[in-house]
Amino acid sequence: MSAQRLSVAVIGATGIAGQQFLACLARHPWFKITALAGSPRSAGKPYGEGIKSPNGATGWWAEGNVPDEFTGMVIQDSERFDPGSVDLIFSAVESDVAKMLEPRYAAVTPVVSAASTFRMEADSPLLIPGVNSDHAPLVKEMAERRGWKGFVTAIPNCHTTGMAIALAPLHKAFGLKTVFMTSMAAVSGAGRSGGVLGLDVTDNVIPYIVGEEEKVPRELAKIFGVFTGGGVTSAPLAVSCTCTRVSVLEGHTEAVFADLGMPATVDEVKAAMRDFAPTELGGLPTAPEGARLIHVHDDPFRPQPRLDRDRGEGMVTTVGRVRKDAALSNGVKFVLVSHNTKMGAAKGAVLVAELLRSQGLI
Amino acid sequence: MSAQRLSVAVIGATGIAGQQFLACLARHPWFKITALAGSPRSAGKPYGEGIKSPNGATGWWAEGNVPDEFTGMVIQDSERFDPGSVDLIFSAVESDVAKMLEPRYAAVTPVVSAASTFRMEADSPLLIPGVNSDHAPLVKEMAERRGWKGFVTAIPNCHTTGMAIALAPLHKAFGLKTVFMTSMAAVSGAGRSGGVLGLDVTDNVIPYIVGEEEKVPRELAKIFGVFTGGGVTSAPLAVSCTCTRVSVLEGHTEAVFADLGMPATVDEVKAAMRDFAPTELGGLPTAPEGARLIHVHDDPFRPQPRLDRDRGEGMVTTVGRVRKDAALSNGVKFVLVSHNTKMGAAKGAVLVAELLRSQGLI
Amino acid sequence: MSAQRLSVAVIGATGIAGQQFLACLARHPWFKITALAGSPRSAGKPYGEGIKSPNGATGWWAEGNVPDEFTGMVIQDSERFDPGSVDLIFSAVESDVAKMLEPRYAAVTPVVSAASTFRMEADSPLLIPGVNSDHAPLVKEMAERRGWKGFVTAIPNCHTTGMAIALAPLHKAFGLKTVFMTSMAAVSGAGRSGGVLGLDVTDNVIPYIVGEEEKVPRELAKIFGVFTGGGVTSAPLAVSCTCTRVSVLEGHTEAVFADLGMPATVDEVKAAMRDFAPTELGGLPTAPEGARLIHVHDDPFRPQPRLDRDRGEGMVTTVGRVRKDAALSNGVKFVLVSHNTKMGAAKGAVLVAELLRSQGLI
Amino acid sequence: MSAQRLSVAVIGATGIAGQQFLACLARHPWFKITALAGSPRSAGKPYGEGIKSPNGATGWWAEGNVPDEFTGMVIQDSERFDPGSVDLIFSAVESDVAKMLEPRYAAVTPVVSAASTFRMEADSPLLIPGVNSDHAPLVKEMAERRGWKGFVTAIPNCHTTGMAIALAPLHKAFGLKTVFMTSMAAVSGAGRSGGVLGLDVTDNVIPYIVGEEEKVPRELAKIFGVFTGGGVTSAPLAVSCTCTRVSVLEGHTEAVFADLGMPATVDEVKAAMRDFAPTELGGLPTAPEGARLIHVHDDPFRPQPRLDRDRGEGMVTTVGRVRKDAALSNGVKFVLVSHNTKMGAAKGAVLVAELLRSQGLI
Repeated sequence: MSAQRLSVAVIGATGIAGQQFLACLARHPWFKITALAGSPRSAGKPYGEGIKSPNGATGWWAEGNVPDEFTGMVIQDSERFDPGSVDLIFSAVESDVAKMLEPRYAAVTPVVSAASTFRMEADSPLLIPGVNSDHAPLVKEMAERRGWKGFVTAIPNCHTTGMAIALAPLHKAFGLKTVFMTSMAAVSGAGRSGGVLGLDVTDNVIPYIVGEEEKVPRELAKIFGVFTGGGVTSAPLAVSCTCTRVSVLEGHTEAVFADLGMPATVDEVKAAMRDFAPTELGGLPTAPEGARLIHVHDDPFRPQPRLDRDRGEGMVTTVGRVRKDAALSNGVKFVLVSHNTKMGAAKGAVLVAELLRSQGLI
Repeated sequence: MSAQRLSVAVIGATGIAGQQFLACLARHPWFKITALAGSPRSAGKPYGEGIKSPNGATGWWAEGNVPDEFTGMVIQDSERFDPGSVDLIFSAVESDVAKMLEPRYAAVTPVVSAASTFRMEADSPLLIPGVNSDHAPLVKEMAERRGWKGFVTAIPNCHTTGMAIALAPLHKAFGLKTVFMTSMAAVSGAGRSGGVLGLDVTDNVIPYIVGEEEKVPRELAKIFGVFTGGGVTSAPLAVSCTCTRVSVLEGHTEAVFADLGMPATVDEVKAAMRDFAPTELGGLPTAPEGARLIHVHDDPFRPQPRLDRDRGEGMVTTVGRVRKDAALSNGVKFVLVSHNTKMGAAKGAVLVAELLRSQGLI
Repeated sequence: MSAQRLSVAVIGATGIAGQQFLACLARHPWFKITALAGSPRSAGKPYGEGIKSPNGATGWWAEGNVPDEFTGMVIQDSERFDPGSVDLIFSAVESDVAKMLEPRYAAVTPVVSAASTFRMEADSPLLIPGVNSDHAPLVKEMAERRGWKGFVTAIPNCHTTGMAIALAPLHKAFGLKTVFMTSMAAVSGAGRSGGVLGLDVTDNVIPYIVGEEEKVPRELAKIFGVFTGGGVTSAPLAVSCTCTRVSVLEGHTEAVFADLGMPATVDEVKAAMRDFAPTELGGLPTAPEGARLIHVHDDPFRPQPRLDRDRGEGMVTTVGRVRKDAALSNGVKFVLVSHNTKMGAAKGAVLVAELLRSQGLI
Repeated sequence: MSAQRLSVAVIGATGIAGQQFLACLARHPWFKITALAGSPRSAGKPYGEGIKSPNGATGWWAEGNVPDEFTGMVIQDSERFDPGSVDLIFSAVESDVAKMLEPRYAAVTPVVSAASTFRMEADSPLLIPGVNSDHAPLVKEMAERRGWKGFVTAIPNCHTTGMAIALAPLHKAFGLKTVFMTSMAAVSGAGRSGGVLGLDVTDNVIPYIVGEEEKVPRELAKIFGVFTGGGVTSAPLAVSCTCTRVSVLEGHTEAVFADLGMPATVDEVKAAMRDFAPTELGGLPTAPEGARLIHVHDDPFRPQPRLDRDRGEGMVTTVGRVRKDAALSNGVKFVLVSHNTKMGAAKGAVLVAELLRSQGLI
């Protein structure tokens, strides 16, 4: 990297996802936020004012307080924002807004997005650094094919990320045929506007998250797919999910039953997970220590979302209860916890940008 | 039934499971509690005193208040209790105590138990009325083989019950080969002594319940097995479970992925569940209305434990989210809620006793 | 009462407060819902459809299911609703809408409202049946003064109701000078639109409820005031509140420290509460059994909102922990639980209507 | 301080309070744990084994993991522990055990205790550093009077600590006459053995904590009392409390209504709190930054236990909602959050030891 930090913009900066981008970009060694943009309602206000609620609440929902450096930065109108004014754009808008704004930005400047809009576009890679880093060059294809100077790459759904990370070393070592997954998702996954009411989730489980169960199989197949230069051929996986919401603040818990391509002992499975430390993550500022993306517990009462979600500053997927699954040919089952609003959201997107930067694609 | 109510005893009457027996036997048309027994610590005290805590709490944890009829009834010492003094015994003791007491009682008087001790005994049926009512006559074999006047029959684990009920009509109509199940179990399943701390379960999921995952497959196979006169041949099922604990008071939620023996549409699956109303439940006082053991929701946000657990006074298993499962040959997946401390505990045991009584086995 | 039931309308029928009116008016012996009205968005649809969410949820949040009798009833547009088409109107709209609609309705027909708009109007009584039933005739003054055929009477804030009921017998027997109250309010008090997020209230206390703390003192003073024919002279009370929100679904818990007008022992205080059974509640269908508005616990671990909120179908205020308060001259302190969405909302409004009807004021 | 760290022992080291001592003493610049002691059950085992549960759980409940330095340290039997082997003892045992052990230890070595046993002893100071640091020399009196080489000083109840800190600057600046307090206490306050069940606290408030309400008034009066050399004359305060338990993991929330000795504006009250930075805390390793013991919010939705408990590593008391209280002569009311298992427990005890050390009393 050059000593010079890239100038970046966060679009949708006042929302909870945008706030998380700010929290993890404050004092980032490679990226420097030089622009914040939001809806016309907040545009023109200093950031500290733009997030304030009419009822007196400060309106900052990410960790700690608003980083000082952003308090006074004036929010721009995202519809009038000049993408040429920055080197890189992080997008934290809703998917319908993303559909409008992101292509316009990408014509000029690379966009890394937390929105779902571009996830399944054939010429856009769906990246999890360390899992499918080799798909990254597809962004060049995208730029070329669309006649853009930039590109858009989206991060996967927060349900997909932890599972893809936990399964990646198994997929590589043993092959992977079938996956059954039941999630116990955190309420933060639903965000704040239209978020899950205490009235609904207290003393309860909500057995449905609109749209989620369709996304996971196709995203997982794309992530585990083969990059052929012109695109990604999805992996031939059978994936079936039930996604539920439980009374947990942060950290999706997933019970996974997987049929591997060949037999593997519990110890081999644990070893493959523990040894998973992709070299290309070395030196990326947001990557977990030693590039170890997975922590494996032997204590059968772990992982627990409250105790394990913050491991590696929320960038490590924690796995436990690794057991043989005799109901499958080469079955293994386990439970994982992944931080849905860190690795599964803004920090995961920042890690993608770091990977692209380290590969010279930004 | 004769107009005369059977005299029954509740053993372990001061514990939470015992209290639930009292709650559902108060004003029961067939059974009349004439004896309560507990540990030496509470023996000799009137029931209302025996459950009181030293710190002033009334110590009644079942619904409503202590039924008036039991407040003054003196608790007997379960080790000295005369089983010949009653027609039927309900046992709500821990499994280690059950191991000692239940055979001694059963030598004289029939015992219906909520403890796990006898579940897998070859000559003891593991009954869910309506699911495997035809196994009931095995109690005669047990009495004969052991030279007892009575017998012991235990109810299944509360994780097994709801799943067995939901799958029973599918098993009958389409066959059943493989089941993957992830439970989100209620904290009441762990009882009060040694129960789950708020400190552990708030904002959390606990991914392990000691012993539970081994019980469910073998119990389900026995329940769906074939009664041959001399015993039960377990069904050839592949069952795999992950049992977790969530912040829910009552009602186990289970996400089930099942491979049937032949293709079935979602509508056929729902119809089989909705039509499941075993005739032998007709007239049993604790059976749900119309003997309908399953309620099926079309609303995709149901079942929810808080909203659905009390359906049919806690005796109905509520199913929702019935979908095809393309990752299995004849796959279907759904979510169920079953009341773990009603159908899955004391009330379920009372229903078993009612079935045995209606078949002349008590 | 005549054998003929009054025809009533529920305005704002699709919201959670409106649904609660429907739940408690189904099969009401005196009132028969003949009209449901809502916003233009739902107007014209059968009720069962009007509450359905776009995401497939049935949208019924009150107890049980939509009463059958209302499923097919077509929702009218509340702005075009003809108040002359019914004998009585229950209003469950927000206070800004109430400001517009209720006077227009009241010009023709009596209105009993759950909205705050009219609570502090000088010519409108703020009624809690049994506490200040003698204020009821003020509705005649209101009609006359405003030239209306009807009137509007609002129920108090749900924070005020339980405290007013618990203090009423003390106010009468011993006088009342000062009250300090801290509430731990249920999330249902915030309703569903704009309700409290799980993300905010899980593992948390929210120390502020906008507007609540100002309402309670002035409402309590009005309720305990003296009716002089032309209006109500507020009682000279010093009342100070801190209202917080906790992770409880239903039932406001309030810790009260009160300075009485003269000394009273703990036993005298308990006796006054237990004996509080206003005769004018006799025969009102929604009044609790024996008109006993207060239940007093001796168990020091009670009241608890989950265990006590539903006492008397949610119409009884449960009190416990009655103690002397040595920091006040004639101090007494206690904790109460009151069902905020039953006695504190729709059912409380229905009880007001029953009182007015029994006094010939409707 | 000398460069040499004092050698310290933690008694009751395997319990949750003991674990918290370990967590905050790992890498402490002044104190070095050289001995761990526990009950005979765990004595003789390496610490990492001694805390392990039979069911496979690691049994570490404090933050992070067992500090490496303690994993292999062998647990001593607290009844046979030689107090002369260390310079200072931290005691984390239950109060009945403390009664037996602490005097025996104190005959030889200073003891700082989290148990309640010695709190109200006339010759033992009840210290909150910064609030009543001048009481510290009473430990010399204690040693002399009892003929001990050491002494015992206990920290206050976790309900008292936050309130004493928040009120201290008001007491000093304006005087303090009367306090009404309602707490919403965290479940961690009840510890793990005999802790609050999820079954009891979910969707609930428990209105009683055995013994707590009597402790707070007398402890507060002692803390705010005058040190006369031979003892402490309690302050003439009228204090009345209701202590409840809510579904919060850590952080006691307290709603306080206080009558001051003279009028003070809201701004004066806030300023007194914000300026409270006792100089004697300067340089104490565990004291919060700038010795500022209180943080005051203007956002009316704060303090919230989940968001504010960890301020200053759990050593800062957070105050908000400061308002006039018109129901009192010189009334002020506010809400505070104090971390009950940090400042209110082990870390608070360590701060006391640091104060004593800085004053040459250890």
